[in-house]
Amino acid sequence: MRFFSDNAAPVCPEVFAALAAANHVDTAYDGDAISKSLDGVFSDLFETPVAALWVSSGTAANALALAALVQPYQAVICHADAHIQGDECGAPEFYTGGAKLMLVEGPGAKIAPDRVAGLLGSVRADVHQAQPAAISITNATEYGCVYTPDQVAALGDLARARELGFHMDGARFANAVATLGCSPADLTWRAGVDVLSFGFVKNGGLSAEALIFFRPELAAATRYRRKRAGHLLSKGRYSAAQLIAMLKDDLWLRNARAANAAAGRIASAAPDRLIEPVEANEIFIRLSPAEAASLRAQGFDFYDWGEGGARFVTSWSQPEPEVAALAAALATL
Amino acid sequence: MRFFSDNAAPVCPEVFAALAAANHVDTAYDGDAISKSLDGVFSDLFETPVAALWVSSGTAANALALAALVQPYQAVICHADAHIQGDECGAPEFYTGGAKLMLVEGPGAKIAPDRVAGLLGSVRADVHQAQPAAISITNATEYGCVYTPDQVAALGDLARARELGFHMDGARFANAVATLGCSPADLTWRAGVDVLSFGFVKNGGLSAEALIFFRPELAAATRYRRKRAGHLLSKGRYSAAQLIAMLKDDLWLRNARAANAAAGRIASAAPDRLIEPVEANEIFIRLSPAEAASLRAQGFDFYDWGEGGARFVTSWSQPEPEVAALAAALATL
Amino acid sequence: MRFFSDNAAPVCPEVFAALAAANHVDTAYDGDAISKSLDGVFSDLFETPVAALWVSSGTAANALALAALVQPYQAVICHADAHIQGDECGAPEFYTGGAKLMLVEGPGAKIAPDRVAGLLGSVRADVHQAQPAAISITNATEYGCVYTPDQVAALGDLARARELGFHMDGARFANAVATLGCSPADLTWRAGVDVLSFGFVKNGGLSAEALIFFRPELAAATRYRRKRAGHLLSKGRYSAAQLIAMLKDDLWLRNARAANAAAGRIASAAPDRLIEPVEANEIFIRLSPAEAASLRAQGFDFYDWGEGGARFVTSWSQPEPEVAALAAALATL
Amino acid sequence: MRFFSDNAAPVCPEVFAALAAANHVDTAYDGDAISKSLDGVFSDLFETPVAALWVSSGTAANALALAALVQPYQAVICHADAHIQGDECGAPEFYTGGAKLMLVEGPGAKIAPDRVAGLLGSVRADVHQAQPAAISITNATEYGCVYTPDQVAALGDLARARELGFHMDGARFANAVATLGCSPADLTWRAGVDVLSFGFVKNGGLSAEALIFFRPELAAATRYRRKRAGHLLSKGRYSAAQLIAMLKDDLWLRNARAANAAAGRIASAAPDRLIEPVEANEIFIRLSPAEAASLRAQGFDFYDWGEGGARFVTSWSQPEPEVAALAAALATL
Repeated sequence: MRFFSDNAAPVCPEVFAALAAANHVDTAYDGDAISKSLDGVFSDLFETPVAALWVSSGTAANALALAALVQPYQAVICHADAHIQGDECGAPEFYTGGAKLMLVEGPGAKIAPDRVAGLLGSVRADVHQAQPAAISITNATEYGCVYTPDQVAALGDLARARELGFHMDGARFANAVATLGCSPADLTWRAGVDVLSFGFVKNGGLSAEALIFFRPELAAATRYRRKRAGHLLSKGRYSAAQLIAMLKDDLWLRNARAANAAAGRIASAAPDRLIEPVEANEIFIRLSPAEAASLRAQGFDFYDWGEGGARFVTSWSQPEPEVAALAAALATL
Repeated sequence: MRFFSDNAAPVCPEVFAALAAANHVDTAYDGDAISKSLDGVFSDLFETPVAALWVSSGTAANALALAALVQPYQAVICHADAHIQGDECGAPEFYTGGAKLMLVEGPGAKIAPDRVAGLLGSVRADVHQAQPAAISITNATEYGCVYTPDQVAALGDLARARELGFHMDGARFANAVATLGCSPADLTWRAGVDVLSFGFVKNGGLSAEALIFFRPELAAATRYRRKRAGHLLSKGRYSAAQLIAMLKDDLWLRNARAANAAAGRIASAAPDRLIEPVEANEIFIRLSPAEAASLRAQGFDFYDWGEGGARFVTSWSQPEPEVAALAAALATL
Repeated sequence: MRFFSDNAAPVCPEVFAALAAANHVDTAYDGDAISKSLDGVFSDLFETPVAALWVSSGTAANALALAALVQPYQAVICHADAHIQGDECGAPEFYTGGAKLMLVEGPGAKIAPDRVAGLLGSVRADVHQAQPAAISITNATEYGCVYTPDQVAALGDLARARELGFHMDGARFANAVATLGCSPADLTWRAGVDVLSFGFVKNGGLSAEALIFFRPELAAATRYRRKRAGHLLSKGRYSAAQLIAMLKDDLWLRNARAANAAAGRIASAAPDRLIEPVEANEIFIRLSPAEAASLRAQGFDFYDWGEGGARFVTSWSQPEPEVAALAAALATL
Repeated sequence: MRFFSDNAAPVCPEVFAALAAANHVDTAYDGDAISKSLDGVFSDLFETPVAALWVSSGTAANALALAALVQPYQAVICHADAHIQGDECGAPEFYTGGAKLMLVEGPGAKIAPDRVAGLLGSVRADVHQAQPAAISITNATEYGCVYTPDQVAALGDLARARELGFHMDGARFANAVATLGCSPADLTWRAGVDVLSFGFVKNGGLSAEALIFFRPELAAATRYRRKRAGHLLSKGRYSAAQLIAMLKDDLWLRNARAANAAAGRIASAAPDRLIEPVEANEIFIRLSPAEAASLRAQGFDFYDWGEGGARFVTSWSQPEPEVAALAAALATL
């Protein structure tokens, strides 16, 4: 019973069907009709003209996004627990040509405008210090929490006022939207977001994420950077097809709702153990070593989270009996 | 009738079947059983212990290979028409941290040892010049020619004597092996090759290439570089499965033989027009603008190659009637 | 009366005399006799064979040192207030090709072994995280404190045990040695330091710092990196001459002692105001805005240090009356 | 008798005097009055508002200039024998973040507009190829030839028409202006040059070159890049003072005229041996091994230039008797 990572989940049947449907001779790279349709399809979803590029990993999406927003001698403000800081082996530094990440703290891996303002106030406006040029947040966060549209907008306002780019790592953007019930537009560009890494792989895709530019002119340079990074796949139509399949009939939302519902059910079985509020598809709970061992003995697979903590992640395809079993096991600990 | 690029070809049914077979819950990244089996499977194929990593494009494979062989302040020797020089938008420079490519000429996009020796002799051994630290060749070349094992070994000997790394871009390695009828080992490590970009996508794969280290210790750093480049896919098992499917029952060789045979048949229809000998699945022929227009009017799609030239590429799945039609059309020009 | 920075101090007459003495036709770059003598002279000073390179700034020295110790996909552990983190506009990231700085806290801008061990313990040994590959400390620190040989050795032992490189930013190394009265060897390689940025400019030099490799084999690559960075000056003999002049008759130590003595005298005038112990040539004191304004009105120039703090720096040439005047002014606040 | 390199020449007395005059307490980095005066002084010289930054080497000047003009995924067009290509160990690649140099040929190390146009025509406007974004020429060239204002303007017109930046490596700009008798403005911005590396070290300076931006807004980012590269010296006033001294009373022109006159005298002694026209302070002549040995036996020091060739360089301070002796020796070979 796998609660280790939503990356361990299988691929949706709809995605497989789309791959099969795309399996004929077509133009290479991103010259095919499916790839060319992405701008339109995502523009419809976001209710504004966007440029949409497929890439094959969330790390690539994030790093390309940041490279579009900051110069090598500048800095990105993010949470100390951000994926871009701790889980990408320096991809942002690689893609940006050595820009710095400047870290702020905050509960739930969320950052508040006053923290950002405080950091900005501590940077001298001289050439001896890398000047912050962008803010990056993760929604849903690395601790399974969500920023509301208003919270995003507060950061977006600050970004605009200070002439900073604004990136959202949306590896679990679908889960955030599913929880909030808001429009994708409200959670992004209407709140000031310039670039979104829109994740699909954890949510049922195979190998395609979308990089969404709400300032489409930023995408021109990124197309070169994507090629240069080896992320312009020669059979890109199979990437594009995955994204189209995920958007069709709101599959991305349905999958996210399923994962969130499973997480909610597990969380409700152990309300007193929660380290963070469960607002997406991750559950962080207090668990003694003995309890952890007991759960593992019962067949549950999960991630240790520091001393006395554990992380459980549910996926779009989490079998209902597994969810029920875990909820029961937690309740009887 | 598409003769524009083998990248336009569809994906093999065997590859699709392998993807479907892999579609269950498993460990993320490259921790799954299929990914873990790659070293062994490729070691068997190459008759020596290798480290084998999946990556999602040939450009990524090449750039990671070069980054494993040269320092930022060094240089790679390659042909002036090499893919790494002219078709990767600076990927080698990006991944190596700014190493230089030093170019040599030669017919068929092949480089001869004396050209390499001449270039080496022109470089002063001082800090003012980037010192060559690797040779990179493409086999089959960008002009559809092949290096024999002896020709590779002559370069390999030079590389060893001058303490240079030796990389082979094998985007069409399968086509070269199919033509030569040699063992993969004879064409690579036994001839001095340190790292091979082993292409599968042009040959029927979907999104997985193999990066083969014949000096397996070189792979340790590359695993970090792959992650940092966003090429450690979170559902890597679907990449590994593609490679396994291609190796099974020599599918890679069968596909390459089919593509080569189609090319040979077309070439034999226009022997006097050949710009380069046809030794793999690419045909470069002289073609006047009027002749090119005539062929296009007949429904043939191909690439202009300079003034008065054209490139046709055949794929593993090139329909026999298309091949026959093109051969007939060329014969009657 | 300038207490703003020791960079504001003039150049020693002995250094000027050495420049004049070097002013004749000689070999360019570092092929001249003076440059060639550096290894020997610094080996004598450090009682062990070293490789010694001149560079024109401390930032260049630090960044070249770190690039010799870590790979682009690795990390350097340093204090959150280290010069390399906050005052070099990302030079370490630039020279290393994007390595990360991992920050630890500690009073006096000093880092303790247990802090480093704690950080090391928090890094997962997988490819998702940049792995620490070096420790960098500053001695004297950015807060004017010194590490003793034993304190350095404790970090050096940890570095060895964990296979980390060990760099010392010695922009004010002379001040530290002057305070400690130890041998340069005891404070560096005998305590495990691999590379030292040995500062001379703040201490009376014009434009030459020394980069000292206690593992001389590390210098070979650095000579290329220095050229590539534009730091191999074409008239390098004038840089080498400065270093020789500073070492002659312990000028570097005499200058540092003078600066330290001035700082000590000022500190003793305001013992209750000290934010950090004064162990070199910097004095950090508590000062209200009104007091700061009063001092400025009396003609003293200094740096504000956060709210209610101030930094005074003394130089090798600080006029005695200025020192006396500042001491008196502080005493009467 | 040194004719090996103008880098071997000593430093002008006027420069030394300026260093001595600057030797008092002043603001660090480039905050001093002398550094702040550079924009004005160079604006006067060039008859237009410029931004002028001191740097400590020509390599740094060139690399910073190129980094201001091209993105990492773009390319610089230069001559195959350009200093930036063959003598800077990849500095342009380092500073630009991996941009490519695209090479054209041409006699005298000069490039003609039609060569550049030809290269531009060969680059496909797609993401697979690095797109040229700048032209860089050297004036006087690496072979001691000069571009006239008209020749520069022809390239400048092309650059404007194709939206390329235009850089001039003026390591020997003074020698070119001295030969041409034109205004510095006519040879640079009026001919379309955006950035000039204005060399002073070979011409009597110690360690300061000037980086001149004719589009001053480009300098803002360069100030950060200079710091990040370790080229913002902490006692920058001594660099600025050198530049001011060189400009005063046209010292730069007088020095260059002296060097050029010496070269001309030597060239006129061996008119039939000239490999390239002597238009600055370098003489390339045919010389058999026996003749070279004979000259060396007579005490002349020079650089071998391929088989049967030699390079002699004269400096601002070349002793008249040495010039006469070399001329006589060549005449009697």
